[in-house]
Amino acid sequence: MSVRRYRCTLAYDGTAYHGWQVQPQHRTIQGDCERVLRELSGHRIRVEASGRTDTGVHARGQVAHFDWPLPARPATKLWLGMNALLPPDIRVSAGRAVPSTFHARFSATGKEYRYFIHNAEPVPPDVRLYRLPVRDPLDVPAMRAAAAVLQGHHDFAAFAANPNREQDGTQRTLTELRITQRGPLILIRARGDGFLYKMVRSLAGFLIRVGRGELRPEETQTILESRVRTARVPTAPPQGLFLWQVYYRPTSNPK
Amino acid sequence: MSVRRYRCTLAYDGTAYHGWQVQPQHRTIQGDCERVLRELSGHRIRVEASGRTDTGVHARGQVAHFDWPLPARPATKLWLGMNALLPPDIRVSAGRAVPSTFHARFSATGKEYRYFIHNAEPVPPDVRLYRLPVRDPLDVPAMRAAAAVLQGHHDFAAFAANPNREQDGTQRTLTELRITQRGPLILIRARGDGFLYKMVRSLAGFLIRVGRGELRPEETQTILESRVRTARVPTAPPQGLFLWQVYYRPTSNPK
Repeated sequence: MSVRRYRCTLAYDGTAYHGWQVQPQHRTIQGDCERVLRELSGHRIRVEASGRTDTGVHARGQVAHFDWPLPARPATKLWLGMNALLPPDIRVSAGRAVPSTFHARFSATGKEYRYFIHNAEPVPPDVRLYRLPVRDPLDVPAMRAAAAVLQGHHDFAAFAANPNREQDGTQRTLTELRITQRGPLILIRARGDGFLYKMVRSLAGFLIRVGRGELRPEETQTILESRVRTARVPTAPPQGLFLWQVYYRPTSNPK
Repeated sequence: MSVRRYRCTLAYDGTAYHGWQVQPQHRTIQGDCERVLRELSGHRIRVEASGRTDTGVHARGQVAHFDWPLPARPATKLWLGMNALLPPDIRVSAGRAVPSTFHARFSATGKEYRYFIHNAEPVPPDVRLYRLPVRDPLDVPAMRAAAAVLQGHHDFAAFAANPNREQDGTQRTLTELRITQRGPLILIRARGDGFLYKMVRSLAGFLIRVGRGELRPEETQTILESRVRTARVPTAPPQGLFLWQVYYRPTSNPK
């Protein structure tokens, strides 16, 4: 029996989960997806994502793949079946068969994360679990000036949680670090070819400090070039963070 | 002891509530606000809103007033006190003292409602309780053509749940009925000097039918002029609806 590889897009509300990765005692996104696929197939199926998301982090466009050990099924049927069994805070969409060379993690060429800040209090209840509340009015032009320094190809060791544990080094290209404001919502968009562990939350934590006036945009260059993670760069809480989109080369991305 | 009137803005997630109005056996927004004010003051305090919202309807900018029977307090302290005791799905903001001539309902000069449609499936989990899922691709230009006919001063009996029970008749001015689209989100914005019972959900239900091609935009005029509510105009579910803002004359709205 030939094994067929499927790729799917996952959106989840991370509030109730201990992140992506399977853990024995905790609810995780991967754990729930694998449980559901086991119910559907009767087999243990491993689900691989583009990357792990941490406890409390959300996703709109996580991508995962798995190998289906039974006769091929229409992908639409498969993801409708998964959604019927998954809890409402995880949704699968856009499942489709892919060549066995496709790998959600290794084929990815880049990602977009979004960090949502509600710059007023109180936060409206409908978005309270998906935005970080910041009461002090943030200086958005200062945040933009700092973000402009961070864009591009750099050694981001100063913005990694554990720079020494990064297997592929600490250089990355941040193709976009853009800050937009709409009413009380301040949105940080980070796109790049890859991200270090907790890098987006570190960038967000740093930019919020700049917005508060605790750090000047002019200090960005010095901090970046120090390549040392210090307390000057805090890690922003997970609740404002969404893995928004994962990019793949068109060839590994057939319709 | 002089009684002082306070005005406050309320945002709520209506999912868990049987609407605004106090009911003996059910959780309601008004019930929770009055319970909290009683805890804070030791007195029964009546909270009056700009209007009732139905079971499951949300609010970003509901306005209410109440009379505080104890010595005046800084309004900020009062709403921080309320938020400390209220559940997280109700938040009070922008409380302030107002003249006793201010009345949340009778002083209101207009309102804005927003109805959120997610025109794709599945709905991302973080917005699943705040948007109506509609799978079939909606024809937004057709919806806009129908909305243009509805804008202005009309007899809206055909879009009221109980036109015969409307005490102030069924004529209203819809100053704006605008439809915008951003990705899978279709947003209906309705602003007017007043709304009949379930009028926004009836407008939304009608516009969705037009978007589905079940009614042609050209039929809008006939339905409006019939002044009769029929099954051609369904009531859209409450989960997509937010009371977004209430308008007051500047004189009844002092800083």
